[in-house]
Amino acid sequence: MNRIIIEPNECEAGRKLVLSGHRARHILSVLKSVPGDTLKVGLLDGPLGSARVDGADSLANSVTLSCHFDHEAPERPKVDLFLALPRPKVLKRLFMQLAVMGVDRVFLTRAARVERDYFGTHYLDEKHYRPLLIEGLEQAGDTCLPRVSLHCKFKQLLFDEITEFGPYDAKVIAEPGAHLHVRDVVQSGTGRVLAAIGPEGGWNDFELDQFHRAGFSCIGMGPRILRSDMACISLLSLIQDARD
Amino acid sequence: MNRIIIEPNECEAGRKLVLSGHRARHILSVLKSVPGDTLKVGLLDGPLGSARVDGADSLANSVTLSCHFDHEAPERPKVDLFLALPRPKVLKRLFMQLAVMGVDRVFLTRAARVERDYFGTHYLDEKHYRPLLIEGLEQAGDTCLPRVSLHCKFKQLLFDEITEFGPYDAKVIAEPGAHLHVRDVVQSGTGRVLAAIGPEGGWNDFELDQFHRAGFSCIGMGPRILRSDMACISLLSLIQDARD
Repeated sequence: MNRIIIEPNECEAGRKLVLSGHRARHILSVLKSVPGDTLKVGLLDGPLGSARVDGADSLANSVTLSCHFDHEAPERPKVDLFLALPRPKVLKRLFMQLAVMGVDRVFLTRAARVERDYFGTHYLDEKHYRPLLIEGLEQAGDTCLPRVSLHCKFKQLLFDEITEFGPYDAKVIAEPGAHLHVRDVVQSGTGRVLAAIGPEGGWNDFELDQFHRAGFSCIGMGPRILRSDMACISLLSLIQDARD
Repeated sequence: MNRIIIEPNECEAGRKLVLSGHRARHILSVLKSVPGDTLKVGLLDGPLGSARVDGADSLANSVTLSCHFDHEAPERPKVDLFLALPRPKVLKRLFMQLAVMGVDRVFLTRAARVERDYFGTHYLDEKHYRPLLIEGLEQAGDTCLPRVSLHCKFKQLLFDEITEFGPYDAKVIAEPGAHLHVRDVVQSGTGRVLAAIGPEGGWNDFELDQFHRAGFSCIGMGPRILRSDMACISLLSLIQDARD
């Protein structure tokens, strides 16, 4: 936990705050903070700041903080992810990883090779995935909560719903064997990017054709077959590096 | 499982093979193969090939294959990893991920910010990590098993032991805030690369100084703080992309 994330409704007007639960446990047991220490904090979807430890009670697992959110809010990441819904075990891991890497919106979608029963997982329920996203922000040191939405109609998402969130300066789709690099499509001046990652087994020919019609560029990421979550980390790294 | 990995001692002279266990289960339940089908196979640390399914018995979870290893052995990855031993939970995940990404050697080392009790984990025992590496090869479609070694003396590894495995065309260390990109140091003609990833909390000043003396270039990977396993995936992706 590299930054303690505070929810807006937790902070009183005076910015005094009593923490319990996993954050207090982390402050007491891992950081071993004592009154007078300063911690990095951030207001969810808001500014960064610091907090002075006013009280620390290991027995009650309680920490009292005075928070000062005196830094600017981080800029929202300039990349959205168009992601074929992965199997629940991978999805669970992905939420944290995506928040670590930094994405603005995550569009989870149906695809021909996505198994129907994946849609039954409780990890699609906000109350289950939100803590995982926040865990990722705590790791990355960011406060911008990724916005997740589920779309059951692939074509409707690709051609209609997505227009609400654009425009995008670049749209890329990772395809085995493609010769373009991310850096051929994304450069330092590039604005918002939409990146697509397929299901295990890949997009089918119909879907690939639709992506081409929608203006996506195929980019290659080498000959090895990555699992969805690793492909996401890899692609987001390449986009961020190319833009930097 | 994108390629069934066969161990050299499993294959008879005539290349006939009876599989049970997780590979048979995968062939029967996920691929739903029947006699006459062809599968992708690979001989561990050897050539790629294909296999004809001669028999498939779901009840006994048994599959009989005729293997033909008629492709060349893949080239070993040209990157070695100098990795501060991560905590056991992350280490377990990393073995599979490193085999997916492709590394030749993994040097696991002590560092000031590596907790001593991490060295007690049973995941440092080859019989526990080897199946995880093979699982990664099955995902990636490769046959080159990463070679893992544990080094309790950081300086001895960095200045003495490592010379046995070089020379390296480039040595890179991921450092928050560094301005160089991987692609400034690694290009298409670059031969073998040694990449270093630190512990949670980073290398200390002494260790960083030693890396500089040993000729490592500091490269930046953006402002976000990645967990060790994600940093590995990210750095290996950037190296592979820069070389490609």
